[in-house]
Amino acid sequence: MRETWWPASSSSLPRYAGPVSFFRLPMLADPAAVDIALLGLPYDGGTTNRAGARHGPRALREASMFIRPYHHVTRRSPYEVARVADLGDAPMNPIEVGQALELITAHYAGLRAAGAVPLTAGGDHLITLPILRALAQDGPVGLIQFDAHSDTNDSYFGGHRYTHGTHVRRGIEEGLIDPKRTVQIGIRGTRYAPDGNDFAESAGVTTLYIEDVYRLGVAGVVERARQVVGQGPAYLTFDVDGIDPAFCPGTGTPEVGGYTVHEAQAMVRGLAGLDLIGADVVEVAPPFDPSGNTALVGATMMFEILCLLADARAARRG
Amino acid sequence: MRETWWPASSSSLPRYAGPVSFFRLPMLADPAAVDIALLGLPYDGGTTNRAGARHGPRALREASMFIRPYHHVTRRSPYEVARVADLGDAPMNPIEVGQALELITAHYAGLRAAGAVPLTAGGDHLITLPILRALAQDGPVGLIQFDAHSDTNDSYFGGHRYTHGTHVRRGIEEGLIDPKRTVQIGIRGTRYAPDGNDFAESAGVTTLYIEDVYRLGVAGVVERARQVVGQGPAYLTFDVDGIDPAFCPGTGTPEVGGYTVHEAQAMVRGLAGLDLIGADVVEVAPPFDPSGNTALVGATMMFEILCLLADARAARRG
Amino acid sequence: MRETWWPASSSSLPRYAGPVSFFRLPMLADPAAVDIALLGLPYDGGTTNRAGARHGPRALREASMFIRPYHHVTRRSPYEVARVADLGDAPMNPIEVGQALELITAHYAGLRAAGAVPLTAGGDHLITLPILRALAQDGPVGLIQFDAHSDTNDSYFGGHRYTHGTHVRRGIEEGLIDPKRTVQIGIRGTRYAPDGNDFAESAGVTTLYIEDVYRLGVAGVVERARQVVGQGPAYLTFDVDGIDPAFCPGTGTPEVGGYTVHEAQAMVRGLAGLDLIGADVVEVAPPFDPSGNTALVGATMMFEILCLLADARAARRG
Amino acid sequence: MRETWWPASSSSLPRYAGPVSFFRLPMLADPAAVDIALLGLPYDGGTTNRAGARHGPRALREASMFIRPYHHVTRRSPYEVARVADLGDAPMNPIEVGQALELITAHYAGLRAAGAVPLTAGGDHLITLPILRALAQDGPVGLIQFDAHSDTNDSYFGGHRYTHGTHVRRGIEEGLIDPKRTVQIGIRGTRYAPDGNDFAESAGVTTLYIEDVYRLGVAGVVERARQVVGQGPAYLTFDVDGIDPAFCPGTGTPEVGGYTVHEAQAMVRGLAGLDLIGADVVEVAPPFDPSGNTALVGATMMFEILCLLADARAARRG
Amino acid sequence: MRETWWPASSSSLPRYAGPVSFFRLPMLADPAAVDIALLGLPYDGGTTNRAGARHGPRALREASMFIRPYHHVTRRSPYEVARVADLGDAPMNPIEVGQALELITAHYAGLRAAGAVPLTAGGDHLITLPILRALAQDGPVGLIQFDAHSDTNDSYFGGHRYTHGTHVRRGIEEGLIDPKRTVQIGIRGTRYAPDGNDFAESAGVTTLYIEDVYRLGVAGVVERARQVVGQGPAYLTFDVDGIDPAFCPGTGTPEVGGYTVHEAQAMVRGLAGLDLIGADVVEVAPPFDPSGNTALVGATMMFEILCLLADARAARRG
Amino acid sequence: MRETWWPASSSSLPRYAGPVSFFRLPMLADPAAVDIALLGLPYDGGTTNRAGARHGPRALREASMFIRPYHHVTRRSPYEVARVADLGDAPMNPIEVGQALELITAHYAGLRAAGAVPLTAGGDHLITLPILRALAQDGPVGLIQFDAHSDTNDSYFGGHRYTHGTHVRRGIEEGLIDPKRTVQIGIRGTRYAPDGNDFAESAGVTTLYIEDVYRLGVAGVVERARQVVGQGPAYLTFDVDGIDPAFCPGTGTPEVGGYTVHEAQAMVRGLAGLDLIGADVVEVAPPFDPSGNTALVGATMMFEILCLLADARAARRG
Repeated sequence: MRETWWPASSSSLPRYAGPVSFFRLPMLADPAAVDIALLGLPYDGGTTNRAGARHGPRALREASMFIRPYHHVTRRSPYEVARVADLGDAPMNPIEVGQALELITAHYAGLRAAGAVPLTAGGDHLITLPILRALAQDGPVGLIQFDAHSDTNDSYFGGHRYTHGTHVRRGIEEGLIDPKRTVQIGIRGTRYAPDGNDFAESAGVTTLYIEDVYRLGVAGVVERARQVVGQGPAYLTFDVDGIDPAFCPGTGTPEVGGYTVHEAQAMVRGLAGLDLIGADVVEVAPPFDPSGNTALVGATMMFEILCLLADARAARRG
Repeated sequence: MRETWWPASSSSLPRYAGPVSFFRLPMLADPAAVDIALLGLPYDGGTTNRAGARHGPRALREASMFIRPYHHVTRRSPYEVARVADLGDAPMNPIEVGQALELITAHYAGLRAAGAVPLTAGGDHLITLPILRALAQDGPVGLIQFDAHSDTNDSYFGGHRYTHGTHVRRGIEEGLIDPKRTVQIGIRGTRYAPDGNDFAESAGVTTLYIEDVYRLGVAGVVERARQVVGQGPAYLTFDVDGIDPAFCPGTGTPEVGGYTVHEAQAMVRGLAGLDLIGADVVEVAPPFDPSGNTALVGATMMFEILCLLADARAARRG
Repeated sequence: MRETWWPASSSSLPRYAGPVSFFRLPMLADPAAVDIALLGLPYDGGTTNRAGARHGPRALREASMFIRPYHHVTRRSPYEVARVADLGDAPMNPIEVGQALELITAHYAGLRAAGAVPLTAGGDHLITLPILRALAQDGPVGLIQFDAHSDTNDSYFGGHRYTHGTHVRRGIEEGLIDPKRTVQIGIRGTRYAPDGNDFAESAGVTTLYIEDVYRLGVAGVVERARQVVGQGPAYLTFDVDGIDPAFCPGTGTPEVGGYTVHEAQAMVRGLAGLDLIGADVVEVAPPFDPSGNTALVGATMMFEILCLLADARAARRG
Repeated sequence: MRETWWPASSSSLPRYAGPVSFFRLPMLADPAAVDIALLGLPYDGGTTNRAGARHGPRALREASMFIRPYHHVTRRSPYEVARVADLGDAPMNPIEVGQALELITAHYAGLRAAGAVPLTAGGDHLITLPILRALAQDGPVGLIQFDAHSDTNDSYFGGHRYTHGTHVRRGIEEGLIDPKRTVQIGIRGTRYAPDGNDFAESAGVTTLYIEDVYRLGVAGVVERARQVVGQGPAYLTFDVDGIDPAFCPGTGTPEVGGYTVHEAQAMVRGLAGLDLIGADVVEVAPPFDPSGNTALVGATMMFEILCLLADARAARRG
Repeated sequence: MRETWWPASSSSLPRYAGPVSFFRLPMLADPAAVDIALLGLPYDGGTTNRAGARHGPRALREASMFIRPYHHVTRRSPYEVARVADLGDAPMNPIEVGQALELITAHYAGLRAAGAVPLTAGGDHLITLPILRALAQDGPVGLIQFDAHSDTNDSYFGGHRYTHGTHVRRGIEEGLIDPKRTVQIGIRGTRYAPDGNDFAESAGVTTLYIEDVYRLGVAGVVERARQVVGQGPAYLTFDVDGIDPAFCPGTGTPEVGGYTVHEAQAMVRGLAGLDLIGADVVEVAPPFDPSGNTALVGATMMFEILCLLADARAARRG
Repeated sequence: MRETWWPASSSSLPRYAGPVSFFRLPMLADPAAVDIALLGLPYDGGTTNRAGARHGPRALREASMFIRPYHHVTRRSPYEVARVADLGDAPMNPIEVGQALELITAHYAGLRAAGAVPLTAGGDHLITLPILRALAQDGPVGLIQFDAHSDTNDSYFGGHRYTHGTHVRRGIEEGLIDPKRTVQIGIRGTRYAPDGNDFAESAGVTTLYIEDVYRLGVAGVVERARQVVGQGPAYLTFDVDGIDPAFCPGTGTPEVGGYTVHEAQAMVRGLAGLDLIGADVVEVAPPFDPSGNTALVGATMMFEILCLLADARAARRG
């Protein structure tokens, strides 16, 4: 097998020291050199409420120092099977949403062309749209969305269509996301209208409200999600506000009453074997995270997802 | 049906902007114009430990900006069936407990006379007593109390009888609360004496310790509470310290080991159909709430309770 | 004289209680009813670094509760000579900078048409541009700018011209600001280029670097500023980052080594008698203000400026 | 000379460890054993705005761990000339202001009878009144008051006369404070009325506004204060809100634009030789002090004042 | 029975006031006077990541003020059956790890000789090693370890063997801990190597990963732990990082996905009747605990454990 | 001239984004490639009170993003005259002080051999000793020390000689520091003994107490410092606790009453032209820095010092 990279040892420098990269991995510029590209996307210009997710990538990199190479349940490491590195932050424009979307798509198109699978640290949830514009060039992909919000509103503020609350609808409309192969897990919270989720439902999205999650249990959610997504290529988007804000207060639009981190870990682990072509962890907003736990949760979820991506990448490579 | 008010749209002003009122509802002065009066009661002069609940109403109003009009489980809105507005803060005196109690009772007597059902944002838990003095003029009412503490001590600090740890006992002694129709949910934490809760028990109060809550489960608690309270008029008091302080650290007397917010939501939803004549959410103390989650939980619970009150009010009106 | 409004008394409700308006003044919708309109402008879409100033208006309103009606040096109150009220938050769009600028200008044009002098709580510093587009319709106005930054860069992020670091240049280019009648007080901090401030200097702006402030002293700064601005109409813009971040950490682009709050107060007081037609206090970013002192400073500076505006308004009315 | 006590050495236990007492001094119960009694008075029931000073004594004790035995300017230690110990917290009632005042006065009368000079860590500023009722039994004393507020209002909230904003007026009315021998240093901030300080002025109090402080300079203030207070017995009360809130944000009623800590230190040092019979440091409110600097300033000022009290006590003993 | 001590009443001084000792108990110096010695061990020199546990004992003492004398489930008090007091902080050296270990062992050997059972508030987890060197002089003891980490690494940073990640291994190697009678509860988090826990497993330690905890449930964990530990003398060490960091963020090496506080309480209660000869609560790091909940959890767990120790001590005394 | 490096432009990535290096400079491994090496030294094992400076380098790197390339007074950039890069964190051992000192000295000896001038971000102040052991191999150097503490104690905790309070004494004793060419600026705060500073004084160190600083003024201090240090090689050590803790609360041993940041900037600027061979900024402790201002001040002072070092390096090169 090709050589892979491993996190810097903590023998010479303790884990709180040394360069700030995802999981203490090397920082590289060439996407062709990696199987999986870890990226930051410090953009929160699609935020309709509290901004701050622009500082998410840095906080996630710092918190990722706590993550060692091996998963304690599988006893395996993603670095055994995939070349993984920190590809830095994607370019964008914090002021102009239109140009930001274009810059992001162009950057991820480059990653795709180079054969790198992206795992992105947001940023607000709008970033999933330009990423999918780059990744779903061959047709719509399945979507597993951990989230408190459906993100299928049509527009905000008098007709504006590109926000972190509308991107899933745009993705479906643009043919990037296959609604029949889309599952949303943990939806809850008050709604603007009684039929707030109708677009998703009429489009065929499978919505698992938090009440469904408690009713089905983790195993039931996993089973349902695997049924919905099936065998084709799929993207995993993990909005930390799906988790209860006692665990993740540092986010722009918290909704009380979510699942625990352990439940989230178990659900993600249950997705092993899906054909994941990319993923993101979004909506970590450090200015609202006084204890830093949101960033720690986000970094841990990134690692859980990285393990899936590494195996999926290896499986595709055969 | 009569015209109702709805929260200000977030189309023109994002939810973090605009006037600070409960749920972005109009601010009115006339209680006769509303079915349900949302009030702040910024009083914490009955606090025996850490003060700060005086700042609760403001924090709850701010956090209530996150709450949209429709409940995601019922898909209904309280504003469909009731006229609801923000009636401002009730008058009180932060220094003299005696006068504070009098001012509060007089204010709520006015609300009652005008036909408005009050949902109050405290303040410390002592406020429930003067509110009940105004509301329970026709005889004792049932009480559903979510709380870590029984609040049935006799006195503090050498005989002082009016504190946030004695008000339930006072309410029973004064004939405002019917102990046989009273249920306390989530009681826990160390006690001053082995028989600390004897007054409650000998008076006939149904105490559900946190161990009972875990044993019975949410459905069992709901069933038991509905049995105890029965069909007559009842008041709901929600002390956020009933919830585990991981979710609600911003409170004066936290006790570890409580229920989750989702469990609290489910228990409150289970009380639908009771004849609620008023309610409060108390003990949110913002100076001890660095992440703001306690206020968010409090505001969400206010909305859950508002849904019950609106239906109860509509049912009484026929 | 016409009736004026006064802050709500703290006899019935302590100052931490009651509705959240600027200085506890009434909230009105009609600009024609006031001499001076206090407004919030919760917009930070022009921010090139740390966002958060969108939450400034709310924090400034809350902190303004600490401000009583009379100035302790003049022993006079602005409410003696002017009708002052809280006109709420101006409309804008948090996502689209272009539309935001248009909405703001339209709103302030309405205020101007109604004869109301605006004192605005930002928001980031970009807001000064659309405000001046509305106010300076009769020709360029003088500008007194308290700030660490000249805000005369040309563009950011590949040519974008509308940010909180470019608005003064735009204002000069658009003929809204008279550079000969413009003074900037407290400029400091590292620069992108050795000639970073050349546009300002070549345009004729008077730049008082922080070293100039210490060399001239408060009295010297005041004298110089009055010379520069002269007798014509002028606008005062107060960026809290002009003050040292020990006093005002809660801002997006702090620069160490600024003046103290007392020096700022003395400088503002020294501007009494200028023909001020409007003013703003900007760049208060509450997510970075753990002690709340930045908001308190901002609210106090708003009051100092309000005193000047009220006298100027009265003087113009004769 | 009699044996004195010295702070616990940091050789065996670092300064952050060990029992929590003022300056790491012994904790004693018998006031007759000491020359100077350090006490906490964890009472904030007289607070008209933000409570929290009840937690002041604990925070001041903790911060006092940073204070070593010798003053770096005088190179002398108060423990060389006086027996100083921590006498614990004075009894009070957090709920009933009337009883609180009685309990405090009784406790300090006991201290006075035992010959102990009290240096008190508040608590809110109302505590100065019951202390003076105990100490000024032989006639009115002089008062040196470091403060942003005159505290000579007549009443609050509909006639209530005992608050932290009225105690100096009460003290003058009750003949405890000699207004002719009273100086207030640092008064500033907006006022409820143009003549807000008229009681103080008409009674003969010397008010040094913050503008006077800057005009006179530290040496001038010291000279003026010494003239006013003269040779008779005097009490020193140090409200931390006299200092600018950049240094002391953790207080209930901050007013921007105050003096620095170094100026405060120099002014206190300038009072050496006055016949001080007691002192307090008040209004440290830890819930509003995220960095802890307010407590550190308060503890340092306590030490500066302790040095004066020790010398005054020694001088009286001859 | 011999006289015991009880916490200071809150009648004269509210619980937030008065001396800072564990559970408001008396502070004593003589270990022979007590059955159970509560101690602080403010040492974090064995920390490999974020320091701060040196401030744990003070925070735990402060938070222990919230704990009343009687357990709400058993309705009994440890003070009924055992003499319990605060013996202060153990001596150590914050700079030199070698001397620190020696000083600690010597101090606890003195406690053992005096017949006092120690319940220690750490400090980082390395402190368990020198404590066991003093307590396990008669042979290895059983160990119940609540923890996210096994702490059986061999060395860090190029061969250093004494850290808070190696002490359990050292304890087994030195014959202080009987691995066959050792159970670790809650182990989780990423690992340095796939076989990271091999030392523990090959030595015979029973490891209950967090997945095991969820699979077995609280009752199952308790049953398993009791089987493993059996009837002989045992030591209980409670690392707060075993609990999920939503409850306990204030710790040096947080691992997401842990058990709740209520589960921890239930597991500890299930250990009643074991022959416990000492215990500690470690890794509370206040600088990372903005809400203070970690300290509150720690203090509550100390009380739960104290109840076990008191009964075990009484049982041994017969 | 040789090619130099410049900070990453903020055109493509805003300053809050991108890799975390000092001043956004490249990260290099080879000291021979640079004139000036920026390093982190995340070690706080010499701390006698509150630890946390181990996190200083990361916080300083992050805050350094605010620093642009050109100095606003000189209008020059250090990158014009010197090759400057981020050389990463120096190796050390957080647990064993002896080995830590050896590793540090070895690393800096390598820098010196390669011809790189080090500017170090601490870490606690002990790090200056091992750095000087590497740099002062040709004889004692002059020392300019900005600090609240003399750091010339002999030992702590029973004879331990290597702490952040003893390193200057060690440096003099070891012949690394020339006391006659040493000036300490800002010394203040209480002392362990009346003669606490006698070692420094008897050795010939020039101590400028804070009172001297205010008496002499900035210009006087600069003149005195230049006289003392003279023309030979000198090292500049900047402990942020020399600055008042209102500006720099995030430090282990704060002392109130220090100079302002602007005064510190002016004093450092006054040292231009000295033959500086290295420098450090120490004692930034992020866990005690809630607003982040301490890190911002530290990063700004690093830049001020970098300007001096670059010129000195260029002058030596001729």
